[in-house]
Amino acid sequence: MTENSTTSGERAPGSVPDPAGARRVLIVSAHPDPRSLTASLTGFAADELRRAGHEVRISDLYAMKWKAVLDADDFPSRPAGDRLDVMAASEHAYATGTLTADVRAEQERLRWADAVILQFPLWWGAVPAILKGWLDRVLSGGFAYGENAKPPYGEGELAGRRALVSVTHGAGSPSLAARGIHGPLPELLFPLQHGALFFLGMSVLEPFAVPDAADLDPAGYRAATAGYRARLAGLFTEQPLPYRRLTDEEYTRELALRPGRERPGSTGFGLHLR
Amino acid sequence: MTENSTTSGERAPGSVPDPAGARRVLIVSAHPDPRSLTASLTGFAADELRRAGHEVRISDLYAMKWKAVLDADDFPSRPAGDRLDVMAASEHAYATGTLTADVRAEQERLRWADAVILQFPLWWGAVPAILKGWLDRVLSGGFAYGENAKPPYGEGELAGRRALVSVTHGAGSPSLAARGIHGPLPELLFPLQHGALFFLGMSVLEPFAVPDAADLDPAGYRAATAGYRARLAGLFTEQPLPYRRLTDEEYTRELALRPGRERPGSTGFGLHLR
Ligand SMILES: Cc1cc2nc3c(=O)[nH]c(=O)nc-3n(C[C@H](O)[C@H](O)[C@H](O)COP(=O)(O)O)c2cc1C
Ligand SMILES: Cc1cc2nc3c(=O)[nH]c(=O)nc-3n(C[C@H](O)[C@H](O)[C@H](O)COP(=O)(O)O)c2cc1C
Repeated sequence: MTENSTTSGERAPGSVPDPAGARRVLIVSAHPDPRSLTASLTGFAADELRRAGHEVRISDLYAMKWKAVLDADDFPSRPAGDRLDVMAASEHAYATGTLTADVRAEQERLRWADAVILQFPLWWGAVPAILKGWLDRVLSGGFAYGENAKPPYGEGELAGRRALVSVTHGAGSPSLAARGIHGPLPELLFPLQHGALFFLGMSVLEPFAVPDAADLDPAGYRAATAGYRARLAGLFTEQPLPYRRLTDEEYTRELALRPGRERPGSTGFGLHLR
Repeated sequence: MTENSTTSGERAPGSVPDPAGARRVLIVSAHPDPRSLTASLTGFAADELRRAGHEVRISDLYAMKWKAVLDADDFPSRPAGDRLDVMAASEHAYATGTLTADVRAEQERLRWADAVILQFPLWWGAVPAILKGWLDRVLSGGFAYGENAKPPYGEGELAGRRALVSVTHGAGSPSLAARGIHGPLPELLFPLQHGALFFLGMSVLEPFAVPDAADLDPAGYRAATAGYRARLAGLFTEQPLPYRRLTDEEYTRELALRPGRERPGSTGFGLHLR
């Protein structure tokens, strides 16, 4: 545990814990300012979830001064001077328990959690660099991929856990909808939701998005938190996105969807939804 | 100019410079190891382009120890204690010439260049964190977006320049093709190619990709460089991707494509290709 991250099993005062339904939630939050919308939504979600009896941990990447850049320092026990084959080095470090302490702590938190929420502002249609660096480093060989890892897309290391992407964006909804110039938000999030979270076996929910987020007024903030509250209430009950599992019936050996299996008219990322 | 970046106007020995056709190319390269495939391809491209008489600069992000994380230190002249509104702070710092020296140097290089090549390994379906941090920080307010920036999607600050994304990926081609489980590579690259490079006005070429890149044998490397050589030869002559410009005929005020303008059957990111 890093000193700047928040762990708390305490329940909010006045909460009515239901021990049967109590779960563990990890929120990974990425914003440089603790007074930002992102930080407020992280705090809001933590409060809501604790009030519902859940245990919440927060990985506040900026507060933790998370190292964003995957480099040779990630593998301190590697022979100096060797060419760095990142995938092999990371698999080896995982197998020998020599990944750095910060990465091991995050992997522990992912295993600990029943649900993971990623909270971030959309920067250039994707996650901020610090969160990209969390993915690059924490989803290491052995843990996420490689010969000794669990098979991807449905059965991975984090199978049985839920994932919710919660994103704020400056653009208005129409520009990130089906015909929007920035591209449909679910498609921008495909590499994160399908390529990383579902790859690791998680049950991924529809993303939660706050549009026009660059200057939200108090009414806008209230509307956003009301929408978020409803989504948080369904964190363990909502139907996840119906991504296809990687099975021989569905995919060829080369990992292409077999002919005729798609829903009529679907193309691109949409092929991978049942 | 940072000390670890390479600048060179020298032509390769034996080259036959054609001053009329000589152009300036910036290669932004993102890999922790100088003996990696990524680093080799960067060196290969620089040699090829210099041999053709072009001037080449390389921003080797790892060698430069590029700061990946956009935070309050990016705006040193901001009043301490103010809430950090990143877009506003970045626009203000640009307007007052108070962005940090590393960011200003990269913006100068982008303006200097007639073509920009981004060379990186695909990590979790996207750019490595260090390159994401280059986008987050260098494409600042004022330069890339905001009231005083040029209009986006066709006319931006970098209009008239060419962009080539050159990516290596571990997966085989079928898994990143139209029916591939990882999603079609051009769609994974949409936020980078359309959302950032074209947003800034650049003429964006088809990406160049090296598949099965995790363990390429010498024959595979020769095939990859042969393919890359052909693409580099066309850097200034190839037809760019026919992205639609942001005009009133094409898009509504809310930035959605007007009904009926798309090529029959196209959806999602494909709508934005003429
Ligand atoms: C570097 C940077 C890139 C951004 N890129 C996008 C973008 O691609 N699409 C978008 O809708 N908003 C974009 N924005 C706006 C932010 O998403 C928006 O300001 C943020 O979600 C507001 O939340 P916050 O107050 O917590 O920062 C960008 C902002 C910055 C600083
Ligand atoms: C953190 C990490 C994430 C990766 N993610 C992907 C991916 O999403 N898709 C893919 O095809 N290959 C992926 N790879 C494999 C790399 O793309 C491949 O090893 C690299 O392109 C080889 O070039 P290099 O020797 O220059 O690193 C990943 C590798 C690492 C280390």
